[in-house]
Amino acid sequence: MDIMRYPRHLIRLIEALKKLPGVGSKSAERFAFQLIQWPKSQLHEMAEIIASSQDKLRHCEKCGCLGDESSCHFCTEARMESGTICVIANSREVFAIEETGEFKGSYHVLGGLLSPMEGRGPEVLKLHKLKERLLQSNIREIVIAIDSTVEGDATALYLKSTFDEQFPNIKISRLAFGLPMGSSLDYVDGGTLARAFSGRSVY
Amino acid sequence: MDIMRYPRHLIRLIEALKKLPGVGSKSAERFAFQLIQWPKSQLHEMAEIIASSQDKLRHCEKCGCLGDESSCHFCTEARMESGTICVIANSREVFAIEETGEFKGSYHVLGGLLSPMEGRGPEVLKLHKLKERLLQSNIREIVIAIDSTVEGDATALYLKSTFDEQFPNIKISRLAFGLPMGSSLDYVDGGTLARAFSGRSVY
Repeated sequence: MDIMRYPRHLIRLIEALKKLPGVGSKSAERFAFQLIQWPKSQLHEMAEIIASSQDKLRHCEKCGCLGDESSCHFCTEARMESGTICVIANSREVFAIEETGEFKGSYHVLGGLLSPMEGRGPEVLKLHKLKERLLQSNIREIVIAIDSTVEGDATALYLKSTFDEQFPNIKISRLAFGLPMGSSLDYVDGGTLARAFSGRSVY
Repeated sequence: MDIMRYPRHLIRLIEALKKLPGVGSKSAERFAFQLIQWPKSQLHEMAEIIASSQDKLRHCEKCGCLGDESSCHFCTEARMESGTICVIANSREVFAIEETGEFKGSYHVLGGLLSPMEGRGPEVLKLHKLKERLLQSNIREIVIAIDSTVEGDATALYLKSTFDEQFPNIKISRLAFGLPMGSSLDYVDGGTLARAFSGRSVY
């Protein structure tokens, strides 16, 4: 209602900007009023970058990771030879994992999580390619690095049962659950505390 | 630093999005990862809307208000004949004032505020056109509707002294200062309280 009196094209711009994640009317209006004051060259540059973003980025055909037009940064021989493959839901998570410096193997992006509620079955996961990779290369461990949500747990369980059966010699692991760093027991939920207990290690 | 490992074109997209007001690295990354997953048609539509926004909107030559290509929504005969002109800093403020339904006159957008600190003198204000309008039409009151900041106060004072001299028959008013609606005295700053006292009215 509050944008009723704006010019038609301004409303169109605001509505377009509202499609960005987490952007409501107020932010979109702030963006729009800023954009219409930019130098035209800057405005066109931004539009061009947005329009071309998908063409200039590509997902690696093998692992699904995001990269520039050139070859995949993560499908190097050294990483392949590590014998470890980290299975993640989305290509974005690769960068968070890379930042830790903990993992030296290769990745495989599933492209989503199972969700019976939203009708996403195993066909949405890029499992076919993962199986191909497991057959072709000498993988000794699959690290499941996905969310500890209902959907994440369902997907992890599905992966484990599928691969346990088809590749009995490959070790399947999942990221540890426990207290986040710097957290206080007072503020940690019961589920996390229970998993931190059952996963306790010798100190 | 946290985006060091992103593909080059993704960084370019993130940097472009960071130019939006109030958008930092984290929000820009969230926007970017969303954008590269959009259907391409939607992405191109958004880029087109951004690129064309300035061409499709125009500032009224007379009052400086924002409008579609057609004639100005605010420069109507009825508004002109009211004899009142509301002076504002930016075209955005028109919409906030219009929403109150309190003002029925016409507007004049200054396009900024005086700021000796940032080297913005009277030449940045669109005063020439305002003077022209004051000479041509039968204006009885100028309502100064600008911020109660240092820059706003300086601009208001400049306008008052300029117009008082040149147009002694035109009444110059400024929006009232006082307690915001719903506010508690405990939380109102001293400056506001002082102005609320000096501006008190018979109850």
